[in-house]
Amino acid sequence: MSSEQALVAAVDIGGTKIAGALVGAEDGRLSRRTRRPTPAAEPGEAVFAAVAEVLAELAGAPEWARVERVGLGSAGPVDGLRGLVSPVNITGWRDFPLVARVRELVPGLPVVLTGDGVAMTAAEHWRGAARGHRNALCMVVSTGVGGGLVLDGALHPGPSGNAGHIGHISVDLDGAPCPCGGRGCLEGLASGTAIAARAAAAGWRPAGDDASATAVAAAAGQGDPIALAAFDRAAQALAAGIAATAALVELEVVVIGGGVAQSGEVLFGPLRRWLGSYATLSFVQGLEVRPALLGGEAGLVGAAAAAIRAAGR
Amino acid sequence: MSSEQALVAAVDIGGTKIAGALVGAEDGRLSRRTRRPTPAAEPGEAVFAAVAEVLAELAGAPEWARVERVGLGSAGPVDGLRGLVSPVNITGWRDFPLVARVRELVPGLPVVLTGDGVAMTAAEHWRGAARGHRNALCMVVSTGVGGGLVLDGALHPGPSGNAGHIGHISVDLDGAPCPCGGRGCLEGLASGTAIAARAAAAGWRPAGDDASATAVAAAAGQGDPIALAAFDRAAQALAAGIAATAALVELEVVVIGGGVAQSGEVLFGPLRRWLGSYATLSFVQGLEVRPALLGGEAGLVGAAAAAIRAAGR
Repeated sequence: MSSEQALVAAVDIGGTKIAGALVGAEDGRLSRRTRRPTPAAEPGEAVFAAVAEVLAELAGAPEWARVERVGLGSAGPVDGLRGLVSPVNITGWRDFPLVARVRELVPGLPVVLTGDGVAMTAAEHWRGAARGHRNALCMVVSTGVGGGLVLDGALHPGPSGNAGHIGHISVDLDGAPCPCGGRGCLEGLASGTAIAARAAAAGWRPAGDDASATAVAAAAGQGDPIALAAFDRAAQALAAGIAATAALVELEVVVIGGGVAQSGEVLFGPLRRWLGSYATLSFVQGLEVRPALLGGEAGLVGAAAAAIRAAGR
Repeated sequence: MSSEQALVAAVDIGGTKIAGALVGAEDGRLSRRTRRPTPAAEPGEAVFAAVAEVLAELAGAPEWARVERVGLGSAGPVDGLRGLVSPVNITGWRDFPLVARVRELVPGLPVVLTGDGVAMTAAEHWRGAARGHRNALCMVVSTGVGGGLVLDGALHPGPSGNAGHIGHISVDLDGAPCPCGGRGCLEGLASGTAIAARAAAAGWRPAGDDASATAVAAAAGQGDPIALAAFDRAAQALAAGIAATAALVELEVVVIGGGVAQSGEVLFGPLRRWLGSYATLSFVQGLEVRPALLGGEAGLVGAAAAAIRAAGR
């Protein structure tokens, strides 16, 4: 029965890779996974050619006949109203008409575009750590910081598909300028990039070549005080941003995935402590923080989940 | 016809006064307005006696027969799930069972409790400056800073009726401790209290006895540099908080009422300039800021609007 379920063709477009799979509309299982490197510095048509290759490979599978819709997840910003994408790290795409171009490749199938933060949230709400919760913030803390919201039991993408953009809220109004044009953005304080830079500036040096946040996390796990301080500051900023979100929309649970979250208690320990200093209002005190469950699959599962949700409206 | 419309009995409970009125369920017009001072430092039963007096006066009107529900708006925090209120400035009420106590006075009528920020938002969305907008933040900037949200065309009170609590989001994670237990809360930077304190600390002195934010606003209107700087800093903090909210939920319009907002361009001018520095993402750049329309009526109109909305769910 399940083998005969309807399918969604999902494509997840990031600055490093373009991934694709067929996703079961009932069980969310992935099959026919494939990927291409993102030619992020090449002209927009070269990037689109990689997307077309991924879709062509999926369309060659015999079960393509059961595909009822296409879900596209993309690094943001996206313009869900007009079907355009302008990923910061894909320079050839500025207001690129991704939805219209994909529609030409899959005549007759609905095509739904979702920003990657919202897609990750759709995935964790459907099959992951936010499942069953009516009000949730799901976040990725990695090279950057992104997120999405579940409100009143449903994904809340916002009119343009960008809601939940927690990486670019200011938690330090006099803070450092951010590439987005703002100041003191959460991403600039809490991303893996920020953690690695903070540790390096404070004098931490890796044993080998790897000076990334992952290496800082390993050092913190062994008690290195500079590495611990670098994570503590990121956790403080995350706590301020999460508490702000909870005060604004009321949340039950916060789900955090991405490379930095994989450092586990090195991040979650100080984050829970700092939440005690920022999430102080009575209605936000019970907020629970937990790790994401879907890992690298979240982008594809979420692009499919958002496409299914859009069909139900 | 309109004179025969259904009515809502509305009561608006603040730290200074308890106001009541009958509100037309179709046109939102107020009649039989009445008020009592809030005995805010007295035991909880004395405060409730004032609420009961207001309701008894309304119930004495011949048109009470057309009252179909009771809407209560209260200073927060409120616990809308359990019908309890704990207003910061009414010390005798901590988890006071306001809904249950009012139900005893109005047998057979539904009683709906709403926090004052959410009530003001319901009012501005029904009859005020947010009318017709699908995604809006409505704020009061006065002695404190509060707010509420309209999302996808509907009031978003959150599960406990406290959503939109923008006064207690941190925009300065290393900032001054706030009475709420947090740090760098928007209220501590942008309220009338904060503006008056900042001007005084910088050496501003009023011509007469009035050193309030209203007097600072008057001085700013005449070009006093210290008064202008006090408003500029408040506007910067408001811009950071508003931009954060827009990044999180996507907003079209921000409506600001309350005493500080009545200073007009002294506040709105620098606020619009600062928004250019914080609301930088493509999907928040078009955000419009405008003054509230309902003034002192917003609490009563909003308590009624929220009660009507709850009936429609």
